[in-house]
Amino acid sequence: MSILVVGSVAFDDLSSPSGSAKNILGGAATYFSLAASYFTDVRVVAVVGEDFAAEHEKVFLDHGIDITGLERAKGRTFRWGGTYTDNLNEAKTDYTELNVFETFQPRIPKEYEDSTFLFLANIQPTLQADVRRKMSRVCLTGCDTMNYWINSTPKELAETLKLVDVLLINDTEAKMLAHETNLPRAAQKVLAMGPQALVIKHGEYGATIFFGDGAYGTGHHPFRAPALPIEEVQDPTGAGDSFAGGFMGYVASQKELNREVLKRALFYGGVMGSFAVERFGTERLQSLTREEIEDRFKTFRELTHLE
Amino acid sequence: MSILVVGSVAFDDLSSPSGSAKNILGGAATYFSLAASYFTDVRVVAVVGEDFAAEHEKVFLDHGIDITGLERAKGRTFRWGGTYTDNLNEAKTDYTELNVFETFQPRIPKEYEDSTFLFLANIQPTLQADVRRKMSRVCLTGCDTMNYWINSTPKELAETLKLVDVLLINDTEAKMLAHETNLPRAAQKVLAMGPQALVIKHGEYGATIFFGDGAYGTGHHPFRAPALPIEEVQDPTGAGDSFAGGFMGYVASQKELNREVLKRALFYGGVMGSFAVERFGTERLQSLTREEIEDRFKTFRELTHLE
Repeated sequence: MSILVVGSVAFDDLSSPSGSAKNILGGAATYFSLAASYFTDVRVVAVVGEDFAAEHEKVFLDHGIDITGLERAKGRTFRWGGTYTDNLNEAKTDYTELNVFETFQPRIPKEYEDSTFLFLANIQPTLQADVRRKMSRVCLTGCDTMNYWINSTPKELAETLKLVDVLLINDTEAKMLAHETNLPRAAQKVLAMGPQALVIKHGEYGATIFFGDGAYGTGHHPFRAPALPIEEVQDPTGAGDSFAGGFMGYVASQKELNREVLKRALFYGGVMGSFAVERFGTERLQSLTREEIEDRFKTFRELTHLE
Repeated sequence: MSILVVGSVAFDDLSSPSGSAKNILGGAATYFSLAASYFTDVRVVAVVGEDFAAEHEKVFLDHGIDITGLERAKGRTFRWGGTYTDNLNEAKTDYTELNVFETFQPRIPKEYEDSTFLFLANIQPTLQADVRRKMSRVCLTGCDTMNYWINSTPKELAETLKLVDVLLINDTEAKMLAHETNLPRAAQKVLAMGPQALVIKHGEYGATIFFGDGAYGTGHHPFRAPALPIEEVQDPTGAGDSFAGGFMGYVASQKELNREVLKRALFYGGVMGSFAVERFGTERLQSLTREEIEDRFKTFRELTHLE
């Protein structure tokens, strides 16, 4: 099945204790679509500028990603500079240049209209809702957001959440969105806003999925996929988007859509996030094999498996 | 098998978003021995003051805990006041009164000398080492420590670690002890200091055990026990000591001592820690049943179990 992702394509300047990288391909839609491409067909809606060259296009095309919806605009592509110090969970933003992304209005090509899975990466909530409403054939919508939208556009975000099946955010965002510091209680409040399932990402500690009573059965027992303790973390950028790509990609590749599939998807999300951070930018995501992915999936299962 | 625990018995004044409790029984040896008492025989070496009454003694005796080694000294028992705000992982210390604990010199009663398991709760490292050297029949020594000793008595702590089989500390302590911010690399450095196994506690995210090549087999694959997302956290005090009590108690109750036992023990540690935080002080640990413990163990297994 095809996943449509709407989000950012960017160029990043990154620095971490492991080194630095300049002017490298990044952005939520890029990490997401590379990660998901190992599982299913992916279609991208995003905007890039005149600095987006054939070599960057090739990264998508080499993974069979459909970039019919990649709009070319006058000006420069969205750019972000970030520095990670010892705490690899948090980046210090050195600069943000929105450039062509500032006026981004997602346009869905006719060929994309039959997409059955949709991922709304972190963009303005009203744009997310508009895209969702246009996609009548979608059976599962995943969505990301961030502190900025939670604080500055709460009403718009609330409208978007009513249209979303699975929201994927981190601990801080979940607590902020729910105005509640206890995580399970925060999860119940967020589920009451609309999503049928809520994935809360814990960085190096894995992720937990909370279920609402509804599409994926009854009962509130959460499920947790632990992450692998990783010795070599070069660059955490894009870990969350790669997680979402693994999660959504695995779900879209399955014939059924139920709680067990979502649980395994949580593990595949962790797998793709763990690969992403091993090298700067998308380097590791570009060179994976399905066998490496399955090997790490097994390692993750064994990490918590009692005889 | 019998576990000997050496550590603090205290009275605490606690305050958290769920309420407050004054003058309640606490201390590492108290939490540890209550948690371990559900699995095996426990013996305590600690010091209390004249304010330690029959009702406090009863808490230990009701759980079959041997308090022959509980020394009564002139003066007041160790007292600690702590406040938890929204971040329940960290207490603000309101006051510390060492009182009779200040000059604590652990004395091992003759009846305790055949103990085969030993837990050195968080006390001055030289005292920990002295106790360990006196206990010739011990087959497994568990040990805790804290930032204060890591910073102020690194040499003494290094000597103690050479005598320890399993060190149980949290993420911050492990990184500080190893002078290394990457957790798996920090774990390898700590294992090189002496312990055969290192348990790193992640608070609400569970715990990971790292193995050295040695007593518990070869190969460095770590193992992680996730914690349950808990809706009702009233008081995190003693969670780590209760974790250690569940871990050591389960190990001591088994006929064999191998990697699989240590993995299951990691789950039981998480189980006891999760009960401890549900009520103020030791209230929940006092009223448990073995059936409740097994139920939660199953819940923890299912939390990450894929079909």
